[in-house]
Amino acid sequence: MEYRIETDTMGEVKVPADKYWGAQTERSRNNFKIGNAASMPLEIIKGFAYLKKAAAYANHDLGVLPIEKRDAIAVVCDEILADQLNDQFPLVIWQTGSGTQSNMNLNEVIANRAQVLAGFKIGEGEPVLKANDDVNKSQSSNDTYPTGMHIAAYKAVVEVTIPGVEKLRDTLAKKSAEFMNVVKIGRTHLMDATPLTLGQELSGYVAQLNYGIKAVKNTLSHLSEIALGGTAVGTGLNTPAGYDVLVAKYIAEFTGHPFITAENKFEALAAHDAIVETHGALKQLAVSLNKISNDIRMLASGPRSGIGEILIPENEPGSSIMPGKVNPTQCEALTMVAAQVMGNDVAITIGGTQGHYELNVFKPLMAANFLQSARLLGDACVSFDEHCAQGIEPNYDRIKELVDNSLMLVTALNTKIGYYKAAEIAQTAHKNNSTLKETAIALGYVTAEEFDEWVKPEEMVGSLK
Amino acid sequence: MEYRIETDTMGEVKVPADKYWGAQTERSRNNFKIGNAASMPLEIIKGFAYLKKAAAYANHDLGVLPIEKRDAIAVVCDEILADQLNDQFPLVIWQTGSGTQSNMNLNEVIANRAQVLAGFKIGEGEPVLKANDDVNKSQSSNDTYPTGMHIAAYKAVVEVTIPGVEKLRDTLAKKSAEFMNVVKIGRTHLMDATPLTLGQELSGYVAQLNYGIKAVKNTLSHLSEIALGGTAVGTGLNTPAGYDVLVAKYIAEFTGHPFITAENKFEALAAHDAIVETHGALKQLAVSLNKISNDIRMLASGPRSGIGEILIPENEPGSSIMPGKVNPTQCEALTMVAAQVMGNDVAITIGGTQGHYELNVFKPLMAANFLQSARLLGDACVSFDEHCAQGIEPNYDRIKELVDNSLMLVTALNTKIGYYKAAEIAQTAHKNNSTLKETAIALGYVTAEEFDEWVKPEEMVGSLK
Amino acid sequence: MEYRIETDTMGEVKVPADKYWGAQTERSRNNFKIGNAASMPLEIIKGFAYLKKAAAYANHDLGVLPIEKRDAIAVVCDEILADQLNDQFPLVIWQTGSGTQSNMNLNEVIANRAQVLAGFKIGEGEPVLKANDDVNKSQSSNDTYPTGMHIAAYKAVVEVTIPGVEKLRDTLAKKSAEFMNVVKIGRTHLMDATPLTLGQELSGYVAQLNYGIKAVKNTLSHLSEIALGGTAVGTGLNTPAGYDVLVAKYIAEFTGHPFITAENKFEALAAHDAIVETHGALKQLAVSLNKISNDIRMLASGPRSGIGEILIPENEPGSSIMPGKVNPTQCEALTMVAAQVMGNDVAITIGGTQGHYELNVFKPLMAANFLQSARLLGDACVSFDEHCAQGIEPNYDRIKELVDNSLMLVTALNTKIGYYKAAEIAQTAHKNNSTLKETAIALGYVTAEEFDEWVKPEEMVGSLK
Amino acid sequence: MEYRIETDTMGEVKVPADKYWGAQTERSRNNFKIGNAASMPLEIIKGFAYLKKAAAYANHDLGVLPIEKRDAIAVVCDEILADQLNDQFPLVIWQTGSGTQSNMNLNEVIANRAQVLAGFKIGEGEPVLKANDDVNKSQSSNDTYPTGMHIAAYKAVVEVTIPGVEKLRDTLAKKSAEFMNVVKIGRTHLMDATPLTLGQELSGYVAQLNYGIKAVKNTLSHLSEIALGGTAVGTGLNTPAGYDVLVAKYIAEFTGHPFITAENKFEALAAHDAIVETHGALKQLAVSLNKISNDIRMLASGPRSGIGEILIPENEPGSSIMPGKVNPTQCEALTMVAAQVMGNDVAITIGGTQGHYELNVFKPLMAANFLQSARLLGDACVSFDEHCAQGIEPNYDRIKELVDNSLMLVTALNTKIGYYKAAEIAQTAHKNNSTLKETAIALGYVTAEEFDEWVKPEEMVGSLK
Repeated sequence: MEYRIETDTMGEVKVPADKYWGAQTERSRNNFKIGNAASMPLEIIKGFAYLKKAAAYANHDLGVLPIEKRDAIAVVCDEILADQLNDQFPLVIWQTGSGTQSNMNLNEVIANRAQVLAGFKIGEGEPVLKANDDVNKSQSSNDTYPTGMHIAAYKAVVEVTIPGVEKLRDTLAKKSAEFMNVVKIGRTHLMDATPLTLGQELSGYVAQLNYGIKAVKNTLSHLSEIALGGTAVGTGLNTPAGYDVLVAKYIAEFTGHPFITAENKFEALAAHDAIVETHGALKQLAVSLNKISNDIRMLASGPRSGIGEILIPENEPGSSIMPGKVNPTQCEALTMVAAQVMGNDVAITIGGTQGHYELNVFKPLMAANFLQSARLLGDACVSFDEHCAQGIEPNYDRIKELVDNSLMLVTALNTKIGYYKAAEIAQTAHKNNSTLKETAIALGYVTAEEFDEWVKPEEMVGSLK
Repeated sequence: MEYRIETDTMGEVKVPADKYWGAQTERSRNNFKIGNAASMPLEIIKGFAYLKKAAAYANHDLGVLPIEKRDAIAVVCDEILADQLNDQFPLVIWQTGSGTQSNMNLNEVIANRAQVLAGFKIGEGEPVLKANDDVNKSQSSNDTYPTGMHIAAYKAVVEVTIPGVEKLRDTLAKKSAEFMNVVKIGRTHLMDATPLTLGQELSGYVAQLNYGIKAVKNTLSHLSEIALGGTAVGTGLNTPAGYDVLVAKYIAEFTGHPFITAENKFEALAAHDAIVETHGALKQLAVSLNKISNDIRMLASGPRSGIGEILIPENEPGSSIMPGKVNPTQCEALTMVAAQVMGNDVAITIGGTQGHYELNVFKPLMAANFLQSARLLGDACVSFDEHCAQGIEPNYDRIKELVDNSLMLVTALNTKIGYYKAAEIAQTAHKNNSTLKETAIALGYVTAEEFDEWVKPEEMVGSLK
Repeated sequence: MEYRIETDTMGEVKVPADKYWGAQTERSRNNFKIGNAASMPLEIIKGFAYLKKAAAYANHDLGVLPIEKRDAIAVVCDEILADQLNDQFPLVIWQTGSGTQSNMNLNEVIANRAQVLAGFKIGEGEPVLKANDDVNKSQSSNDTYPTGMHIAAYKAVVEVTIPGVEKLRDTLAKKSAEFMNVVKIGRTHLMDATPLTLGQELSGYVAQLNYGIKAVKNTLSHLSEIALGGTAVGTGLNTPAGYDVLVAKYIAEFTGHPFITAENKFEALAAHDAIVETHGALKQLAVSLNKISNDIRMLASGPRSGIGEILIPENEPGSSIMPGKVNPTQCEALTMVAAQVMGNDVAITIGGTQGHYELNVFKPLMAANFLQSARLLGDACVSFDEHCAQGIEPNYDRIKELVDNSLMLVTALNTKIGYYKAAEIAQTAHKNNSTLKETAIALGYVTAEEFDEWVKPEEMVGSLK
Repeated sequence: MEYRIETDTMGEVKVPADKYWGAQTERSRNNFKIGNAASMPLEIIKGFAYLKKAAAYANHDLGVLPIEKRDAIAVVCDEILADQLNDQFPLVIWQTGSGTQSNMNLNEVIANRAQVLAGFKIGEGEPVLKANDDVNKSQSSNDTYPTGMHIAAYKAVVEVTIPGVEKLRDTLAKKSAEFMNVVKIGRTHLMDATPLTLGQELSGYVAQLNYGIKAVKNTLSHLSEIALGGTAVGTGLNTPAGYDVLVAKYIAEFTGHPFITAENKFEALAAHDAIVETHGALKQLAVSLNKISNDIRMLASGPRSGIGEILIPENEPGSSIMPGKVNPTQCEALTMVAAQVMGNDVAITIGGTQGHYELNVFKPLMAANFLQSARLLGDACVSFDEHCAQGIEPNYDRIKELVDNSLMLVTALNTKIGYYKAAEIAQTAHKNNSTLKETAIALGYVTAEEFDEWVKPEEMVGSLK
């Protein structure tokens, strides 16, 4: 491999000749060989591209950056956003906790790429843009990284997570309406209980997802606040007046999302409670999705020795040894995702607690875990929707067999003959393996006519809407 | 000890003669000897008292309970709320996951206490109130326990947590304003950075708590929804029409909080995402409080070998072996509480995932952890406020010494002489253990006059509001 | 209430006249009104009693404490261990993170109680024992609290957790042997799979618990190391030569457990990885017990609409609204305990990470969570054993019905006719709702005789031991 | 892109023409578009390669696979282990929880690659090896995936984690010995305490890592047990007698690690407590490393406004805005890794609890989190060692300044004049900002000579070994 020599304030560094990055990126690459290379999420890199472009525009508007420099920066940022420079960001999550070298990675790539676009070679000084003085103007890692993190997080939630969950929610709502009159046995404590309809059961899942979406949306206003303009410690040192508000306006314009400048920049650098807050809501979604997908696999269990009240699509052979086996694989993927999100929540929580003084230095950890959760939840909901939820069908025969046979229909008699006699009927029928009706009559508590009038599963399910 | 014989649907049980509880409570007491006795939180018992009284009123209004029974129930509920029957609730958290026997504990105590108040003895049948048919009318454990849980949780958050956090927030806000002009060194990565004021630093903490309070409040509408009226599986079987709305109205009236009936009762029984949601926000507060209290103990560290920029009250001798030692004990209590809340969040998350079909049976676990968190956060904030925050004072001499000596003031030169020359000054001064000014002049980058004009800590802290 | 005036190095304090505790305990009681009073676990108080007595003996042996003082201390420690002074320890978990005031609570109670036993009144100076100079001799909170914590933790694990788990393990092992020939359907992915026996299924649970017990035991040697002798920062300042080894010998003698002095006292004060380590193994047990109890409730589900392969004891009426309902309540208590332990593990983990320099100040948090887990696991296993596991019986008819009907018996044909044809048989039988045998013959892949010879559930379960 | 048509038991699938994988891999690839492609860790793929080869050898030895087939399988497995087929494994973690399609991915690639090596084209039937009948012979996904997982996990821990931690431990031990006589101030509660030496302080870290390594090693015997031979549900259906022991022997031989067959195959399929167990110990290491790296960054904080007792290497410019700033970046990477491992522990714990009946279907989740933790811990320790620990040096001047100035040296007077007088000296000196010696003499408690004789920091640090 060929190298060129780059210099920073600490001295010289050998950098791969064909790469746009410079000395500081290379130092970080060499000093942090932890896990897979280039693990810093590309969403973060793009978050930086948005903010570097916005900063250039704001700096220009405020008179501290000439228009040629603004445009030189913007062109490269657009290339980054168009995935044209993806191989120029080799750094890992497990670097300095401020993400400083990732900020410098952007500064260096933008400066060098602009230089090449202007017809110079890399390594010939900084004739077009200075990485620290121009590309990073009015910025610090301490405010750029959290800004890039909020941009990436917000976009992931709004563009991936919520649409994915809504897609699944819509399918479940449709199924709920469709099966609203299918009376089935209820189960509490995993034991037979009074009846409800399959549509009612599914409506509970829809409600869970609606609450979850609302909970996520409640957190977005905090997440929409960006740190940019706080620079090193939150005071905004070395930024022109009005910069913070203006740069946020540009970010909002470029991303199409309602970003605003953070009300308190000290909080925005030293704490990442907005990340903790939104991820807390993502975790709630994980909890809901775990419940839903676990229920669905139990309801679909069988085909002959399980519950078997619903049918779900058969997508792939389920076993390399058991021929003909089909498994609820989408449920499994979704519950694994849920477990991951719950684990990520703890990593983010711990990272969130450990800010010291003016800076939290668990930024890349928090960002990476957040983005994984947001992406996985959205993707997994879409996958579950398309390959499972849309295909849910009632197993009518099985549903009817179970409800007809249930002992818990006896609950309808509570208000007629009291809880204690009703209990005696159910227990006796269970002991004798007989039906409720036979037993109720044999015990002399009701007549056949009364039983038929009082015990009607379809009238035990309340109002159906 | 003397016993009486009680009977339920499963047969006879010996119950302590002097207790109001009956057969089912006693069965649970014997079957679940796990941990300390009577660990079911009293807040939950009182939540039940509110709802039993409300149910009696609603049942009466809807024509299914005579006024004498309503009033007999209400009188005992009021006694419970007045802490007069606290020794009648011996059950533990670690019982059935629906809390069924705690519901029965209430039913039995109310029925038997009413009987005694009416001049009967316990054990003479149920001449006044039937535990299952009257006290539990239009109810099931499955909707009462989550209702009691929401009442207790909502009250704890609104009456204990939020006021406690607000009290601390107000003190920090007052201190922030008071010290807004105290210029001090900033620290990022625990290393010296550019200056800010002590008031600015504290304003970050205020912002954190404001966001946290807002996050908690965002969750309250979900928590205000109650399951009552869903009965066994969410269908509302055995309830009169209009009951769910009416009973919620009475609960709102009796508690003084805006409870409403849950939009979807299936969700309200089978999932406890509202508990997950609000506790997620409590966890966010724990994260914030951990950051704040950890910062404060670091800033107050010393007296001679630490940071020592602030002084905090000396409340107790700090060591049994080191005479004269004083420690940041309130910070320690608060960070321990934070860690507990973060652990509780995982317990609640796990409990929340494990609803099966129509019922989540981790209710007492979720309730107990939630209530502990809500109480500890509120109490610990009050304690921290009274015994620490209110006494925070700047150590002016130390603050001035450190800021005067700082190398990072060099950052003010970036916009004058560029990042690279500024870095050279700082590094050279560090190496030579000299001052920035001396070094800057020696290197020939600025004159003494320029230095004094450009490097003014008090002008590096931005706008002070 | 009556008070007396006590004095410590910070001045005067009013203390309840009838209590043995002194100024420092009272300060802590007033300064930390967080959560329930007296929440510091009594096991910790007793751990202190053991070590104070042991310290007195060691100090005497090494010539720094007269025999009368030694015996005066020992007498009160024995009273504490005999539960005679339980109301003298009013402090909470949420105090200083070193537990300093709990150490002083012991010092003060021992000194004052000894004074009263010697015929003096409390508050007449310290004529018998000086709290700091005699009772605390050769000690610091920093080494006593972790020592008391290890004593309490070790005892709880060895005396409560392990015996409880072993009791359940033994029952499951007995049941496994008893049902070793009961062939039943297996289930993977919750779907029907090839058969195994009920005894085999239970043997997996036994293996889990055996691994878990072994994992816990592996950690005990670390937990048996005690910090005493390190005093303030681990150097052993103010202790006589040989003290650390000798005091550990006395603790081992008094407790009957093999405690030894910690090899490195700096680690023993500044980190509590032994608590993290053992609790990690307790968490593993929680994971295992969750799996086992969840399986058992699924296997016992029904009675008519569930799996229903096993029967478990009916211990209490299961519902206040559904007459005759019986639920797997012991499974629910056990899974709630498991969730609590998993949450506690996170609290302990976080506490464990946060030692600073020479001291970890999350000690009471770590101790309280540990002791709760150890106690709950032991108690819940005993409860589950006595009220559930011992009563597990196969539902032979149901087991036979399901195994006879299974499609996955087709797996036995893999090695005869290949995976692909076997799959065709299973899928066709499933589609036509017919039996494997009919279908296999109809497809022409086997004769009736071959089928009967090759497909024998009882020969598909491998060797039974 | 060009495609070929492949067929499995469910029908036809279009597969990229140039890939070795077949129908089932392709189905999974299409059905699980969740997160990044090919996220199933390569270590797992290689674990499969070891076991497929071992199974081929065992099958041949036991007479159920001809030698040509054995060798055809072995050749491709060796190619996989040599990283020659890395682009043939496109599946993700978030698939079926049994990893069935990853098992099939291996079966298909091995069969097709062998076919190509034998001169056939892919897609021409299965003339050389049948994926299900030959490559998967005597196997099921249910026993292969956990076996591959144990192989990968064991290797990662023994080859990456432990060596990394030992490397760091060795450096810290060397530094501890080197600085054993450097007397410095101790700190408890972040406050000044009695002195110790820098070597002693570092010895605590060494002890932590030694305990952690031992804890990890304690878990390895469980992790060395492999499920292979259990097939579908643990009974070993369709395996020749002796297979399980023999195949484990081959795996041990091929990997060079002491793998043995699991004692109980039901446990080995249905629970993954071995993963929970070992990861629990990895989490303990994370706790320890967090403490150590956090201490080091605090001790190195400054350069002028922090603690500054040690110097650590300056590896990269620390700030894009503050010239000359250097930060403890290796500490930050390591604490972020620690937080990740703690989060992963929760994901693994949750996955571990959720086995149902004969199978745990959170296998890929558990494997992926485990392998990430093991790799990150090992890598981060090496990075921290090379770029930080090896360069730790005392800042002698600063250390001396702080120890000379300390008030806590007064503790040496406890045994001479008692705790209470000693406290008075310290408090008075603190109040008057004077030295201990001046104050002690002024108060008349000691003479100058006594003070000099009794208060010697170097004699307060105990025995140095």
